[in-house]
Amino acid sequence: MSETAFTFAQRVSRLKPSMIRELMKLMGRPGLVSLGGGLPSAASFPAEALRAAAQCVLSQAPREALQYATTEGLPALREWVAERLRQRGLAVQATQVLITSGSQQGLDLVAKLLLEKGAKVAVESPTYLGALQAFAPYEADAVEVACDEAGPLPESLHEVAGARALYLLPNFQNPTGRCIPDERRIAIANQAKKQGLALIEDDPYGDLWFDQAPPPPVAAHWPEGTVYLGSFSKILAPGLRLGYAVAPAPVYDLLVNAKQAADLHSGTFAQHLVIELLRTGMLDTHLGEVRAQYCLGRDAMAQALHSYMRDLATWQVPQGGMFFWLTLAPKIDAAALLPQAIEQGVSFVPGVAFFATRPMHHSIRLSFVTEPADRIEQGVAALAQVIRRALATQSGQAQ
Amino acid sequence: MSETAFTFAQRVSRLKPSMIRELMKLMGRPGLVSLGGGLPSAASFPAEALRAAAQCVLSQAPREALQYATTEGLPALREWVAERLRQRGLAVQATQVLITSGSQQGLDLVAKLLLEKGAKVAVESPTYLGALQAFAPYEADAVEVACDEAGPLPESLHEVAGARALYLLPNFQNPTGRCIPDERRIAIANQAKKQGLALIEDDPYGDLWFDQAPPPPVAAHWPEGTVYLGSFSKILAPGLRLGYAVAPAPVYDLLVNAKQAADLHSGTFAQHLVIELLRTGMLDTHLGEVRAQYCLGRDAMAQALHSYMRDLATWQVPQGGMFFWLTLAPKIDAAALLPQAIEQGVSFVPGVAFFATRPMHHSIRLSFVTEPADRIEQGVAALAQVIRRALATQSGQAQ
Repeated sequence: MSETAFTFAQRVSRLKPSMIRELMKLMGRPGLVSLGGGLPSAASFPAEALRAAAQCVLSQAPREALQYATTEGLPALREWVAERLRQRGLAVQATQVLITSGSQQGLDLVAKLLLEKGAKVAVESPTYLGALQAFAPYEADAVEVACDEAGPLPESLHEVAGARALYLLPNFQNPTGRCIPDERRIAIANQAKKQGLALIEDDPYGDLWFDQAPPPPVAAHWPEGTVYLGSFSKILAPGLRLGYAVAPAPVYDLLVNAKQAADLHSGTFAQHLVIELLRTGMLDTHLGEVRAQYCLGRDAMAQALHSYMRDLATWQVPQGGMFFWLTLAPKIDAAALLPQAIEQGVSFVPGVAFFATRPMHHSIRLSFVTEPADRIEQGVAALAQVIRRALATQSGQAQ
Repeated sequence: MSETAFTFAQRVSRLKPSMIRELMKLMGRPGLVSLGGGLPSAASFPAEALRAAAQCVLSQAPREALQYATTEGLPALREWVAERLRQRGLAVQATQVLITSGSQQGLDLVAKLLLEKGAKVAVESPTYLGALQAFAPYEADAVEVACDEAGPLPESLHEVAGARALYLLPNFQNPTGRCIPDERRIAIANQAKKQGLALIEDDPYGDLWFDQAPPPPVAAHWPEGTVYLGSFSKILAPGLRLGYAVAPAPVYDLLVNAKQAADLHSGTFAQHLVIELLRTGMLDTHLGEVRAQYCLGRDAMAQALHSYMRDLATWQVPQGGMFFWLTLAPKIDAAALLPQAIEQGVSFVPGVAFFATRPMHHSIRLSFVTEPADRIEQGVAALAQVIRRALATQSGQAQ
């Protein structure tokens, strides 16, 4: 008899739990000011509208809404996504839209098609942690593209020549909050096209703008070379687990096959609920409310950072999305401060979690959408104190 | 500029669409008697109970039900699964239960952990097509274990020594309807244990028994070596996309990491709905109704087969589940009959879809749960006519 019935595939060594998901377990601590997780504000969920939608769907079409469905997703939802993207400047047909179980699944499926051992995938620096996690089991090596405040540097893309794809999050990026300007999008698309470098464009936050909508997607400038991923998590509710992938024809068919093997199709009932919600026309009003609420959070955090942190960190004020990105003094190791911060009643995510290869240890991601304004101020003040104490201790040690 | 931005991973050549899912598109044809797909009866969905549950959940806990959740699944649901499995003879703790997006995702995640190029995975002959699909992208080679009417032959397991796992569907198997007897389960578990051969036990149909519940899971005889997969699709509704995986500790942690990378977690709202349904205690009554209804379908099909097919095919009458498996005359290629059958108003699935390596072309899978009794008879009569005509034509050609 063998003790070890299980022999694992080599890729298992690449599987790592997310630092953020591990943090979420701590964040259940009562009273903790959560500036850590990327949880959308629960106050923004359209619970009443969903209640009405559930009644409607389960009265009018219970058999369809509870049955298996086609892998591609429900036609009405695919059509809605295509129309919405057309309004944003991306020429898309419903036949190119695959409904996914959140945009995280879109990342997994694209990685399954494109990545393998010995291949490279290029990412921003820093980049979305969940993308690094999704790519990891496929054993490609993630390489970082040089970035400035406006995003990846087009002239640096030649350094990742031969990569299977460049993963981009152009709108209010997680973690930096950065929005890539239109000219830069065009330059990146042109350079990628020249190199034959495929793009994976991830856009969960594009609708969460404060003053003006972001420029058209990068995909608009190179549709044949881009897989575009979107999500209903940040505009309706993450608990429905619905997102979408848009891809040019040959990639699309493979994505559908991969999706079918992975989970047959996404939730039928959840898709019916969202179709019913969208049919009522509530989305634009709802989005207006979410934007106004998140803008208040952004303003509260900008104010609190100015009050408590202006000698401790630098940052850009984000024009949408959910996050501030702080750069501290280089001698600070943000991860080492986390236990003290939690003790002082505030959580954050150490920036080191978001780098593929060259971690910046003195960086921090703060979310401004989970907590109300007064608690944001309280959390930032507590965090400032922790950082200040660390700086004092280190100065003391240096003497 | 490159025409081909996309360079695909080698595994892409293994991705195939499911014959059944392709068939489902044909099955939308109005009037067609569907003996093809494995769709549970829509009449069996607890739509009214779900309507009440949706009201309750969205009134009482909308924020929790619509938010992100932990990867493992909601504690109350994991606890329910563990308790249910303990009642069935499997010693399980809630900490070993991972909620998945249908049991199809369980197959994908287990394959991701265990399979890779150059590895082997053993399967029954025939076996569930969706498992072959889930395994394919991981590039292992599927090998068939010799089977008789009672399931895999324990003495044949040495022929698949070195395989990463044996995939088994012991209760009312898809496609054969076969239920492995208790003694055989014990013999298989003992032999697997002796060889150090891991088991993947898939059990979507175990609750759909007619006269008596099936024996305890194979996992009960070798819990340290088995990953057990279950589903809410066949006992509540597939459109919720909820299933579960139960695994010994070291495998469990890796499964959670793989799940997190794949889609973060399964639908929070759907999990809350199911918890609320189960809390009301409706499941056992509901299951009694589903069993009674499916038993009527089984009886109708047994009667129809006896009336129209007794000189055309052989079969075992299934004691649960959803399927009959017919063996026709060896000269019949069932797949070639499908277009004529659809023209005659009836669909079926050619058995060839369910074999990993040695297809049996003269076999057919029929579902008895999608259609009412009178249409089952009508469909079987039409199919008999198609087969009879094919036999006559072939005899004519042979002359």
